[in-house]
Amino acid sequence: MTPSAVESPAGLIITGCTVLTHDDQEGIGFAQDAAIVVRDGVVAEVTGAEAVAGRAADEWIDARGQVALPGLINCHTHAPMVALRGLAEDLPTDEWFNDVVWPVESNLTERDVELGARLACAEMIRGGVTCFADHYFAMDTVAAVVAECGMRALLGEAYFSSQGPRGRERSLEFALRHRGSADGRVTTALAPHAPYTVDDADLAATAELARAHGLPVHLHAAENRDQTETSLARHGVTPIEVLHRTGVLDTDVLIAHGTGIVESDLPLLERADGRTAVATAPRGYLKFAWPTTTPVRALRGIGVPVGLATDGAASNNSLDVWEAMALTSLIQKSTEDDPRWLTCRQALHHATLQSARAVGLGESVGSVAPGRRADIVLVDLTGPHTQPVHDLAATLVHSARSADVRTTVVDGRILMRDRELLTIDVPAVVRELGERLPALVDRSHGRRIQQYDT
Amino acid sequence: MTPSAVESPAGLIITGCTVLTHDDQEGIGFAQDAAIVVRDGVVAEVTGAEAVAGRAADEWIDARGQVALPGLINCHTHAPMVALRGLAEDLPTDEWFNDVVWPVESNLTERDVELGARLACAEMIRGGVTCFADHYFAMDTVAAVVAECGMRALLGEAYFSSQGPRGRERSLEFALRHRGSADGRVTTALAPHAPYTVDDADLAATAELARAHGLPVHLHAAENRDQTETSLARHGVTPIEVLHRTGVLDTDVLIAHGTGIVESDLPLLERADGRTAVATAPRGYLKFAWPTTTPVRALRGIGVPVGLATDGAASNNSLDVWEAMALTSLIQKSTEDDPRWLTCRQALHHATLQSARAVGLGESVGSVAPGRRADIVLVDLTGPHTQPVHDLAATLVHSARSADVRTTVVDGRILMRDRELLTIDVPAVVRELGERLPALVDRSHGRRIQQYDT
Repeated sequence: MTPSAVESPAGLIITGCTVLTHDDQEGIGFAQDAAIVVRDGVVAEVTGAEAVAGRAADEWIDARGQVALPGLINCHTHAPMVALRGLAEDLPTDEWFNDVVWPVESNLTERDVELGARLACAEMIRGGVTCFADHYFAMDTVAAVVAECGMRALLGEAYFSSQGPRGRERSLEFALRHRGSADGRVTTALAPHAPYTVDDADLAATAELARAHGLPVHLHAAENRDQTETSLARHGVTPIEVLHRTGVLDTDVLIAHGTGIVESDLPLLERADGRTAVATAPRGYLKFAWPTTTPVRALRGIGVPVGLATDGAASNNSLDVWEAMALTSLIQKSTEDDPRWLTCRQALHHATLQSARAVGLGESVGSVAPGRRADIVLVDLTGPHTQPVHDLAATLVHSARSADVRTTVVDGRILMRDRELLTIDVPAVVRELGERLPALVDRSHGRRIQQYDT
Repeated sequence: MTPSAVESPAGLIITGCTVLTHDDQEGIGFAQDAAIVVRDGVVAEVTGAEAVAGRAADEWIDARGQVALPGLINCHTHAPMVALRGLAEDLPTDEWFNDVVWPVESNLTERDVELGARLACAEMIRGGVTCFADHYFAMDTVAAVVAECGMRALLGEAYFSSQGPRGRERSLEFALRHRGSADGRVTTALAPHAPYTVDDADLAATAELARAHGLPVHLHAAENRDQTETSLARHGVTPIEVLHRTGVLDTDVLIAHGTGIVESDLPLLERADGRTAVATAPRGYLKFAWPTTTPVRALRGIGVPVGLATDGAASNNSLDVWEAMALTSLIQKSTEDDPRWLTCRQALHHATLQSARAVGLGESVGSVAPGRRADIVLVDLTGPHTQPVHDLAATLVHSARSADVRTTVVDGRILMRDRELLTIDVPAVVRELGERLPALVDRSHGRRIQQYDT
């Protein structure tokens, strides 16, 4: 026996499943009766089930009747805001911010953020989300929760210009302190809030820091059409033009929402020096009755990846990326007046490779393929609502639900197995968070962390 | 001991739950730590949990931590079409009908319809749907499935004028044969397909039969704006005007979709002699990129109830009324450009009393209240995606999912308990349906049951 024939046991073998694959042109396909071999957190092989018979592995999952997908990626959220889920309903954007969310956020403690992040991660793992791009406050606690629960995340400490230079500095310090932490599962970004709350000087300084330190920038911009119109009226430029002239578009930038992106912004985004991506979270746009949605078709036309997102649960009101995938498909068809646009396979492309690119992980996750990190979810399609299967892509996008995810794996580690969360104690989190809610939601002080007037 | 103090055991007692209630003005409220006592399929009491301690019941459910709601009602579907789920994707309406659905439906056998109906009922029971309004072919088999699985349904045998007078006659025969069957759980309607497939003479004859036999009419009308425009161009009247002039609006009529209802139709609907209702199924409108949705606000303004619906799973692609509730709220806010419209409580009113009225059961279901039939679902809100609860109405509409339904009760009988279906064998249905699919989806013959040209 030659040494090469003696293999150490794999970390994980998943077998008997159908695997969502990408071909050379990134077309979505499905390999049936397949097996996935994971070593050291990386996909080593995607092969036939018969090829792994008799092999050894530390963990072995018989996934017959299930579909293996790349883990979903929530490309823009504020995870700890699950604590405010359902607190500010049926309100326009300005009242939602000024009367509820920003007053309440003036009460936030690190412990609130920690518990919120833990509850959010539990929800995401249960919904098949393996990675999220988070933009919030007290992010050291979020980084600690990510380390502990096993997810992957792109984290950024949010700041406003109203905080003075210290806000920007803390965002940088956070990004440098945590970059590559949690065994490489945490990546970081600079996280100015938005062009309407961060002034041009701060944005320019942010862009410079991003270039100097090789960090991406994650921010809200052109969230809605009002913001674009107000920016034009006050400053004569659109929010995207602000990003251009302050140098932010020369960095690797992740823009949240962009429903206010207008035609004239497209050449700026197309010619941007940096890697530019947009995250779309359509549920909140409908709920706030914003007049437009993210111009996905136009962005795809200029090569900008559009990742799927939920935004925070205070607006959404969940972190259900599966729903975001379906809604993106539905709303894009409706908005573009074209039922042939944003097909099931296009939706799956957004959910996989485009979302991975949006969070700067286009080479390492987003596909179940040799060499990629083993971020994998197993979906059970035996329920009556997902039968029969005429077209697996349609079943996944339009019939399956987040609750159909049975098993969630990140970096080859099983975080949920057969619906059981292995790294988070939800009842304990809910109990303690519940005790803290009265203090958290108190608005009698009249403070708010910021004023929304676009 | 007086005889009145000796009570026979209740059929079912559910205790410890929070109960969704309606006040005198039909406002949505929640009674906490409550109990529901069911006798002979009817809600006998809604009381405090302590009041039922020590009582006897044939079935006893400890529902602590759960919310009891009136069972959801799917106000317009084609249940057996689950067999075609995912078969016709990313297509405009005319191609969907002419190239896939109507050719395939020319292959339908009674056994296909039966299996489809059984799978659909399984999906609905699992999603907390206790009643559905079905509009399809071979409805004797659907009635048999309803009888067997324990659901409640308003059933109608669909017909086109292309079938000659026999279609209409069979629709009547079916309605008379099955009215009140399944211990009263089956009610029936006459079911002409739509004004664009059923001519005025047939609609007028249908209206006369409906009046003569005291039957409601369930049909598609003004499904989309194209149909309204085509009707105006060809006949000089809108589809709703056709219903008016043929006498259909003098009957109790359930109109599916109505996204093509225009301003001038509203007075006709308001003055209609019969009980008029509309079913809205917004998912398909988005998917087909129809330019408008059901004008819910205008219909509410004239007192027309709007029930929630999924349409068939060949377009939707599920029978998820929970999703329909959320989507109706989101799309109405967006369409009306008003985030304050279609609040969480309004959505729950549509899901309960308005849906009950839409299917002609406004006095018997739609509320968990003494004297109403015991159609109840129990929802588990302990999952991380439904915590914390700041506002239970918001949690139910925007965070909960159909998979959170744990127990489904119709007429006091438990059809699903702790997610286990008690009346339908899903694997057996899926297996046999799978064997039949190649014959069902064969389109090589070139036939279709009808031609769509609005």
